[in-house]
Amino acid sequence: MRKPKIVILGAGYGGLMTTVRLQKSLGVNEADVVLVNKNGYHYETTWLHEASAGTLQPDRVRYEISSVVDKNKVDFIQDTAVEIKTAEKVVKLENGEVSYDYLVVALGAESETFGIQGLKEHAFSISNLNSARQIREHIEYQFATYNTEEEKKDERLSIVVGGAGFTGIEFLGELANRIPELCKEYDVDFHKVRVMCVEAAPTVLPGFDPELVNYAVSYLEKKGVEFKIGTAIKGCTPEGIIVAKGENEVEEIKAATVIWAAGVRGSSIIEASGIEAMRGRVKVNPDLRAPDHDDIFILGDCCLIINEEINRPYPPTAQIAMQEGEVCAKNLTALIRNEEKLEAFTPDIKGTVCSLGEDDAIGVAFGRKMVGKKASFMKKMIDNRALYMIGGPSMVVKKGKFNIL
Amino acid sequence: MRKPKIVILGAGYGGLMTTVRLQKSLGVNEADVVLVNKNGYHYETTWLHEASAGTLQPDRVRYEISSVVDKNKVDFIQDTAVEIKTAEKVVKLENGEVSYDYLVVALGAESETFGIQGLKEHAFSISNLNSARQIREHIEYQFATYNTEEEKKDERLSIVVGGAGFTGIEFLGELANRIPELCKEYDVDFHKVRVMCVEAAPTVLPGFDPELVNYAVSYLEKKGVEFKIGTAIKGCTPEGIIVAKGENEVEEIKAATVIWAAGVRGSSIIEASGIEAMRGRVKVNPDLRAPDHDDIFILGDCCLIINEEINRPYPPTAQIAMQEGEVCAKNLTALIRNEEKLEAFTPDIKGTVCSLGEDDAIGVAFGRKMVGKKASFMKKMIDNRALYMIGGPSMVVKKGKFNIL
Repeated sequence: MRKPKIVILGAGYGGLMTTVRLQKSLGVNEADVVLVNKNGYHYETTWLHEASAGTLQPDRVRYEISSVVDKNKVDFIQDTAVEIKTAEKVVKLENGEVSYDYLVVALGAESETFGIQGLKEHAFSISNLNSARQIREHIEYQFATYNTEEEKKDERLSIVVGGAGFTGIEFLGELANRIPELCKEYDVDFHKVRVMCVEAAPTVLPGFDPELVNYAVSYLEKKGVEFKIGTAIKGCTPEGIIVAKGENEVEEIKAATVIWAAGVRGSSIIEASGIEAMRGRVKVNPDLRAPDHDDIFILGDCCLIINEEINRPYPPTAQIAMQEGEVCAKNLTALIRNEEKLEAFTPDIKGTVCSLGEDDAIGVAFGRKMVGKKASFMKKMIDNRALYMIGGPSMVVKKGKFNIL
Repeated sequence: MRKPKIVILGAGYGGLMTTVRLQKSLGVNEADVVLVNKNGYHYETTWLHEASAGTLQPDRVRYEISSVVDKNKVDFIQDTAVEIKTAEKVVKLENGEVSYDYLVVALGAESETFGIQGLKEHAFSISNLNSARQIREHIEYQFATYNTEEEKKDERLSIVVGGAGFTGIEFLGELANRIPELCKEYDVDFHKVRVMCVEAAPTVLPGFDPELVNYAVSYLEKKGVEFKIGTAIKGCTPEGIIVAKGENEVEEIKAATVIWAAGVRGSSIIEASGIEAMRGRVKVNPDLRAPDHDDIFILGDCCLIINEEINRPYPPTAQIAMQEGEVCAKNLTALIRNEEKLEAFTPDIKGTVCSLGEDDAIGVAFGRKMVGKKASFMKKMIDNRALYMIGGPSMVVKKGKFNIL
């Protein structure tokens, strides 16, 4: 009898959690498990804002997939998925293809620019380790270049962050700590530097408790961040951004660095493969399978689950992605063993903490609001927990955050 | 009676040595001494290739002028010299002017591009701390960007060094050590990287012993450096360089980074001030004064002294500049004290060592040829000696090189 073959696309939080749980729950003879990922490493998406700002070494943000995956139980293919041929049960890769009986799509997010002109070409986005390193080096290069020019271009020292959501605010927190270091290293006057946060919505961190939002805004403002709330970005050029000003007018803000942190969407491979989705997100069945595709599970940023309490989708977080990975592994094990009943997924949100740099944060954990060092400590525990859940205690020792006050 | 006023332009090897010697030899009541420098710091010009390659932290390459200059004896003006009005005995600065009775011009070198098209606009030069930091960051940015692009541009990983003289070779030595680190940090295949040295002359390091030159070339080639000797650069574009190929043809070499290390000249302020010079260098009298200007001493890169033995100018080195500073301080002291006889300057070349990175070098010291670790050790001793001569033992402790094998 042929063993069923499970193919997992993506080694982010959801895909890698599914993989490590499957290698525990399934015997070698029960199924073939294949993990496909573009890179040989997993990276902590929730730490990318630190690598982007330059406050954490990029190498601290990743670990080798081989360090958590059991070679005897899982085949790893380093390649990039291009298209899922659902009828043929085959995934086309850049350098080949792989067939499946069960497929797990955990391909993560892409930047969504909502058709705003020039953003794709001229703005950076904190999407992966490559882009994070590029952002860090781009900013450093601007500071390094400033003093080499006879005629000083102050816009080299201007950084626009588009979006005051989670990523935007966490990145601003790191940047606020990094800028004084850069000023010192490159002999730049701190007062020449401008860090601006431009957000179309009427508030920072929509959905967060207003008291915590106020704390975050005044903390960042004290460190020099300017907030332009209720201001829509209309376009991006090599020189900066164009924003709406009043009803019909626009204004140019010059900035050598523009980071777009205002929108993500699921993987475009999903639509390209004919699976029904909204902005790359599939509204999955309770067992995490795609409607009309009993052999395909969708996890993480590509997965849409409605929070019935507020009738809005759950945010695509690492915490939920890992929980989905656990349930997905259980359901796959059940299917392989021909068990009838699959588990329905319910998120268990333990807390949400938004960091404001190394030593400050705001958040809610175990039902309590917190700010400052306590929240910052909680954030680091959450970061370490993600390492622990996938890589066990040794990964926490290797990559964990212990700079705890 | 009015005290005579000595103004020293430039806090490089020559100017700073003059200053620290004058503050020892002259009493407070004998003269006013004023040091003018663009930056508040002195940097080790002979270490800039390390900061440029990224193998030495830029901060290690400089120290505050205030840490070696006695405020009670020397006034320091942080400003940039624009023109010397010799008839009025005044130096025009960007933000003011300063009059003198005696002037020491130690303004250092500028990059000389010999009119080659595009070099000034598109090539970097290892001229000062600002440009060194910019080169380091430019190269890092190219590596960081490589993996972010769908279509890989291998020219991002190509670095052209124009010139196989001292600076070019020392920079290549550092680069050869740095490239494998960059490859690791940015997940770049080492074999995609090209480091090329393009030199119009028929040999590397003209004037050096051929045996030592062979050692250097094969050492660098082993580390992946390609030499294109006898190849003239005809132009530089945003995409790379144009080189002569045969009699009438040209060839394009694509490279995102072009470092021009093939020519320096003295300060252009000298010609702008009507002092007779060739490429910014003044053929000084034996006492280091400019012909027809009894009140002006010229030191360092702006000073031209012929080596009678070979009828060619001495190379503008830190070693000679510091020796000039010592003689200049003696001669100024003599002039202030109305002594008749000034000392004639004779360089005392103790050795010349060209480093090939952290742990290798070639050179001649105390009349002996040396290569490898011995030469590398000697180079570090020379570097430490420069710190010692100006800043004393405490400066050696603070900034010295002790990574000795």
